[in-house]
Amino acid sequence: MNYRKVGKWGLKISELSLGSWLTFGNQLDIAGAKEIVRESFKNGINFFDTAEAYANGMAESMLGEVLKEFRRSDIVVSTKIFWGGNGPNDKGLSRKHLLEGTWASLKRLQLDYVDIVYCHRPDPETPIEETVLAMDYIVRNGLALYWGTSEWSAEQLEAAHKACKELNCIPPIVEQPQYNMLVRKRVEEEYKPIYEKYGMGLTIWSPLASGILTGKYNNGIPENSRLARFPHLRKHLEENGLLGEKVFKKLQKLQKIADELDAKMSQLAIAWCLLNDNVSSVILGVSSKEQLHENLKAIEIKEKITEDLEKQIREILEEE
Amino acid sequence: MNYRKVGKWGLKISELSLGSWLTFGNQLDIAGAKEIVRESFKNGINFFDTAEAYANGMAESMLGEVLKEFRRSDIVVSTKIFWGGNGPNDKGLSRKHLLEGTWASLKRLQLDYVDIVYCHRPDPETPIEETVLAMDYIVRNGLALYWGTSEWSAEQLEAAHKACKELNCIPPIVEQPQYNMLVRKRVEEEYKPIYEKYGMGLTIWSPLASGILTGKYNNGIPENSRLARFPHLRKHLEENGLLGEKVFKKLQKLQKIADELDAKMSQLAIAWCLLNDNVSSVILGVSSKEQLHENLKAIEIKEKITEDLEKQIREILEEE
Amino acid sequence: MNYRKVGKWGLKISELSLGSWLTFGNQLDIAGAKEIVRESFKNGINFFDTAEAYANGMAESMLGEVLKEFRRSDIVVSTKIFWGGNGPNDKGLSRKHLLEGTWASLKRLQLDYVDIVYCHRPDPETPIEETVLAMDYIVRNGLALYWGTSEWSAEQLEAAHKACKELNCIPPIVEQPQYNMLVRKRVEEEYKPIYEKYGMGLTIWSPLASGILTGKYNNGIPENSRLARFPHLRKHLEENGLLGEKVFKKLQKLQKIADELDAKMSQLAIAWCLLNDNVSSVILGVSSKEQLHENLKAIEIKEKITEDLEKQIREILEEE
Amino acid sequence: MNYRKVGKWGLKISELSLGSWLTFGNQLDIAGAKEIVRESFKNGINFFDTAEAYANGMAESMLGEVLKEFRRSDIVVSTKIFWGGNGPNDKGLSRKHLLEGTWASLKRLQLDYVDIVYCHRPDPETPIEETVLAMDYIVRNGLALYWGTSEWSAEQLEAAHKACKELNCIPPIVEQPQYNMLVRKRVEEEYKPIYEKYGMGLTIWSPLASGILTGKYNNGIPENSRLARFPHLRKHLEENGLLGEKVFKKLQKLQKIADELDAKMSQLAIAWCLLNDNVSSVILGVSSKEQLHENLKAIEIKEKITEDLEKQIREILEEE
Repeated sequence: MNYRKVGKWGLKISELSLGSWLTFGNQLDIAGAKEIVRESFKNGINFFDTAEAYANGMAESMLGEVLKEFRRSDIVVSTKIFWGGNGPNDKGLSRKHLLEGTWASLKRLQLDYVDIVYCHRPDPETPIEETVLAMDYIVRNGLALYWGTSEWSAEQLEAAHKACKELNCIPPIVEQPQYNMLVRKRVEEEYKPIYEKYGMGLTIWSPLASGILTGKYNNGIPENSRLARFPHLRKHLEENGLLGEKVFKKLQKLQKIADELDAKMSQLAIAWCLLNDNVSSVILGVSSKEQLHENLKAIEIKEKITEDLEKQIREILEEE
Repeated sequence: MNYRKVGKWGLKISELSLGSWLTFGNQLDIAGAKEIVRESFKNGINFFDTAEAYANGMAESMLGEVLKEFRRSDIVVSTKIFWGGNGPNDKGLSRKHLLEGTWASLKRLQLDYVDIVYCHRPDPETPIEETVLAMDYIVRNGLALYWGTSEWSAEQLEAAHKACKELNCIPPIVEQPQYNMLVRKRVEEEYKPIYEKYGMGLTIWSPLASGILTGKYNNGIPENSRLARFPHLRKHLEENGLLGEKVFKKLQKLQKIADELDAKMSQLAIAWCLLNDNVSSVILGVSSKEQLHENLKAIEIKEKITEDLEKQIREILEEE
Repeated sequence: MNYRKVGKWGLKISELSLGSWLTFGNQLDIAGAKEIVRESFKNGINFFDTAEAYANGMAESMLGEVLKEFRRSDIVVSTKIFWGGNGPNDKGLSRKHLLEGTWASLKRLQLDYVDIVYCHRPDPETPIEETVLAMDYIVRNGLALYWGTSEWSAEQLEAAHKACKELNCIPPIVEQPQYNMLVRKRVEEEYKPIYEKYGMGLTIWSPLASGILTGKYNNGIPENSRLARFPHLRKHLEENGLLGEKVFKKLQKLQKIADELDAKMSQLAIAWCLLNDNVSSVILGVSSKEQLHENLKAIEIKEKITEDLEKQIREILEEE
Repeated sequence: MNYRKVGKWGLKISELSLGSWLTFGNQLDIAGAKEIVRESFKNGINFFDTAEAYANGMAESMLGEVLKEFRRSDIVVSTKIFWGGNGPNDKGLSRKHLLEGTWASLKRLQLDYVDIVYCHRPDPETPIEETVLAMDYIVRNGLALYWGTSEWSAEQLEAAHKACKELNCIPPIVEQPQYNMLVRKRVEEEYKPIYEKYGMGLTIWSPLASGILTGKYNNGIPENSRLARFPHLRKHLEENGLLGEKVFKKLQKLQKIADELDAKMSQLAIAWCLLNDNVSSVILGVSSKEQLHENLKAIEIKEKITEDLEKQIREILEEE
């Protein structure tokens, strides 16, 4: 396993990492979650990502239960605060919810501190100075060692860094955006000045684009598959051009490259994310040890992707 | 129940809220106080306001006793520090009294932190930098999430924000002024630049002007009524033009509008406060469940007040 | 008892206060110390001053033992750090000694915090930024509510305030200088800009000039008196012009004024200190209840000193 | 024993001090370590230096075990963070390792705080603002009273002080470089502006240049000696010109001076370090009481070195 710096900062995380979204507390019970975490750690994964929103806090509780088995400094644990419940102050990036949410997350995780607290989304209803001062409180009081953002625009990140400077607050070091072969613009274009000016790193989610990049939807939506079960997600993907003929055509071409590399399409997709130097870690969502090992092989596949091959892939992705 | 932001800030409070002034520890014993708080919460009220001065701390003790029943993040609790006793350092906004007062209030409230600590009055005897640094201590040490002021002039608020900026202190987010149909100048005129420049919100007290806006004094001071029992208050109201023929004339005209809306005069008065967008919450002082429900109906009445009707009311209030 | 603000600041202390220098742990055992403290408090004294150096910490231990009887917010307790022992780091205003000294003092005093920690002397061997940052740590961590200095020059105070501004540190609010009819220059002249620019208050020591202002040395040094027992002190006083014919001549004239006021010379001397508005409190060193009551009468004497009489006294003091 | 200020700062340490590198947990078991520490303290040494890296934390554990016998304020304890293990985040000056490393060191040392935490090496992979903010956290949360650096270049120190100023962080007060008769450039030339601008002190290590300055290698590498056992070290010394004919020639001349002073060559070497006023303390690595006493005599030898003799030594050292 390779460990990458989070942007310019000193924290080091495994280039593949384990998320708990949609798996912990859903597909995985506590026994299954423990098994996956242990197997991940055994294979060099040191970064474990969760959120207060995942399975209504259950994902944190399950993760906390198994993390006790490791030496604290051997792991990097993150959680994300934004959706903590249905009450008027359970949502967003107010000082009240950020502090109460973090306190509650730490309790569920059975930890004194997490390594990173992410602001899970931007909150246009809360002034950036309130959010920045609350995150500063969290870091300066030892509830977290670092803080980050998730799905913030470059403009919002600029505003955050500006407020940090003005208020003498500790700035965010990492963004957690969606990034994959089909969703590239923000990471590859919009964030460019952010990398240069602030040295922020990226921990990216959805490397398989909700499973589309496994190729399993190329021939229609199989019964019982995620897209069959969540029509809302399907609609969202269609509207954003992630489903449909144009995409499947690209996927068929990519499949050929995967075949040449003796790789599964999903492995190629993950490997491709790792080619981006601004990516500190690709967060995997796996529901079995087999799937974990399958995904881990992406590291080897990445080594096989020549510059020429990378160019070919890029051209396929950019076809109209 | 609607929840409003406290000015531009991320904290959200119910537009009607429960105060404990003159009721907790006076008209209400612990059983009565518990009943009112539970009923308020059940009806969507999430903001509970008290002060060290109310019933010599007894109001806080009673409130604390019942607040234990709720999830901490579901409620927004505030207290106010200024009058804590008769000793030389029990009063005002010195660092000594602000810290000792807050520590004592938290103990009575059985809480680790309140959401808001208000400076209950301005203290011209203490330099603003001392007060601002002490409030900053309170927020940065987690004794309160936010701080506010009560009955400060716009000029005093300007001075506070200026000192916060100079000393890198966290600024106040909310003022608690008196506001009602008969006392409008400060909220509607004096504070204008404060809303714009600092985004402060308002939690307003005395929406019924010591009961005058219920109309019960229109035909003289009834025996055993509050004004009969407190001649000092009566004199104060008279001197400030809140009692007397001029006022009663207006009230008679307003009563007609209330009748048209199928509302009690008190409901119209509360509803009218809610029309002001700078008001985050109207603090109610109620001594029975019946009165609480009567007041809560103001929300429906507010919906019925057309722009035209609002204009009519304003004209009545501005008659000489 | 009158309570005065400490300079421009919000803290209020009794204009006469109780010191523990030379009495607690020397002339007074624990029973005696308790009696004096209780009697002082009963008579309105709320300010109790001590130091780590007094009786090698014993003064603090004795004071702590009796202070437990009072409500914490009713009293203002100060200690002073500088001479804590004989080790290389037991002396002066280094961060190490200031923090270790304060921790040790609080333990002896059995308090969570004192109201004021004084830097007992200036320390030219430690840079002012180190001292200022350490005092800021003490205040921002709640070990003291305020900090002050003792026997610093105006120039040193200027340097401290400048460093506080540059390093965003909380500034000192009070100086503790010697001040009495015979030692007036620093308080009356040197500190003038300090009062104006920084609003510092004064808690003054030695109002009786080591007993000289009781008049008991006018006719020579009595056996067993303090000056007889401490020849070093005697020499020091002589060198500074506090003993000798010139002084005794003045004292004889002042005695006449005292007689006119029906006061003891010592009462006149204390009363005279109280005439200075920059003095927040006159620290008394008493070894018996009788002496305490005698000194307390200075407050009444002060009321009798007309402007004209004050002028007469001043002229006597300024005679060559 | 003389105590010197650490640069311009208020902390005072013995000019000879006890290190635990290569001895504690290696040549010395717990009984031996205790004996050496007690004997050092008895002879006036108050400064005890260790590091998380020494004997994999064992040096700290052993030191902690014996330090319990002393009054905390009588001793000055330092540790150094950089190499804490083999995990991805166990090394360097990231916030994660600095905090986790310091917490672990304090546990092993059984202390609430150390006097100084050193950044054991510069870390070019971590931005200076991250390191400086983490060290500021350590000092402002009372884990250490001061912080320092070890083997940083003047340029790196400049960058650290600049970042401290910009971020309102407490600056480092001390560097721990190698310094001895054979390695002089950094301390005597490179750091000059650092002393003047920032008043940093030095606690220097390797005063005997890995034993070369004892003269024991003058006639070849004895069996079982340190250089025989560590060929890597030998190579390193040779490459840096610390071994070889040129050096031995100088040593023979210096031996003559030592003889004249009735001193051992090692005593002369230590004494010579003490001549440098920028050196606050020379850290000794001793494995027996005898060696300790032998080294302590360097203080007397230093007194015998006249200005003329110092000049002679300097000329020998500067011979090509």
